[in-house]
Amino acid sequence: MVELGVLRVLTLDDPEEVALHGRLVERHYPHVSTLSRCIPDHPDGIPNAAAEADALPHIEALGREMATEVDALCVSCALDPGVEALGDALDVPVVGAGASVAAVASARGDRVGTLGLENGAGSSIRHLLGDRLAAEEVVEGAATTNYFTTDEGRAAIRAAVDRLVDAGCDVVAPSCTGISSSGAIPDVRADVPIPIVDPVVAMGAVATTAVAPPRPLRQ
Amino acid sequence: MVELGVLRVLTLDDPEEVALHGRLVERHYPHVSTLSRCIPDHPDGIPNAAAEADALPHIEALGREMATEVDALCVSCALDPGVEALGDALDVPVVGAGASVAAVASARGDRVGTLGLENGAGSSIRHLLGDRLAAEEVVEGAATTNYFTTDEGRAAIRAAVDRLVDAGCDVVAPSCTGISSSGAIPDVRADVPIPIVDPVVAMGAVATTAVAPPRPLRQ
Repeated sequence: MVELGVLRVLTLDDPEEVALHGRLVERHYPHVSTLSRCIPDHPDGIPNAAAEADALPHIEALGREMATEVDALCVSCALDPGVEALGDALDVPVVGAGASVAAVASARGDRVGTLGLENGAGSSIRHLLGDRLAAEEVVEGAATTNYFTTDEGRAAIRAAVDRLVDAGCDVVAPSCTGISSSGAIPDVRADVPIPIVDPVVAMGAVATTAVAPPRPLRQ
Repeated sequence: MVELGVLRVLTLDDPEEVALHGRLVERHYPHVSTLSRCIPDHPDGIPNAAAEADALPHIEALGREMATEVDALCVSCALDPGVEALGDALDVPVVGAGASVAAVASARGDRVGTLGLENGAGSSIRHLLGDRLAAEEVVEGAATTNYFTTDEGRAAIRAAVDRLVDAGCDVVAPSCTGISSSGAIPDVRADVPIPIVDPVVAMGAVATTAVAPPRPLRQ
């Protein structure tokens, strides 16, 4: 088995909720088992720069703890908070959901549309996409990540994806992992003509490339 | 199981050799089974633009045939030949090794070094990397992909990676899938301080994000 750490930046009480992103990775990659933990004191996740600054010491401390138990560490937030610092500090690969969704979307299309909270996509995604960033949409009403798991939130995700299609995008890169949590992606995919990359699955995909396969390679 | 088609642009007689890239994907992703086929008349692969032009009709015809049997089609060449045309024509996702290795490398570092045949990296990789392309190296003596599977070729791969490290790269994106075939990547990884992305594994990773998981998602 490959062991991946999944660090959540949204404070949740229910261990099943904490493990939601890890379970999504495991569904896509059945040879992966995940260890999920969340930072304290952030029940609204990281909706803005002030919250990100406040969360960073928690992320770095938790990441250091988790790294001792996993083959690679995944920071399950599209802002990639702490990824660079943890990557420099740790012996295991560190992967962020933001760079991962931007990367996978870049491999699948030329005109990428982002889709996130009302305050827009993070700098990690913008930086990686460069001039492939064709359009940015926000999910109306999404002040924090928790909105995505409401019925209104899921409907608003669908409406925002439709706007990205109308804008000529050929792939969607959700810029908040709350869109994975919403459960809306499989349904929206069935209805729209362009790929929608799941940021949590993309993070798992990139992380698995960084870890040796479960069995030795046949020569 | 997820069924991936692996289209080889190197003409090989031995079915085990044809299946080599598919087997590498299966090792990394045990829930994947692969169907591998190769184009005719290209025993040296695609070492230059003339060979690419000559190969394209074969690639597009073979891709159309394979697509009826798979969940996604992978063109296992870092030039991504035919990927755009097949993507437009087919109902299944089409993924190329070039865009995939460039994308995964972009998610893992800022200063990407490419590593390929003596005539350099393909336009697909250069285009995707943009200003993340920090250095380009070629494997000395590698006029065609077959050189990578010789002992001299493997030693030359190692020497070229060392030059990319010296040039300040923080990740290596091999720009020829023959470097996967060489079997050298695991050994070189153990010796160098920066990640080396396997282009065939990266292709598998990107392809798996495009296919629904084997079992339905738990809601």
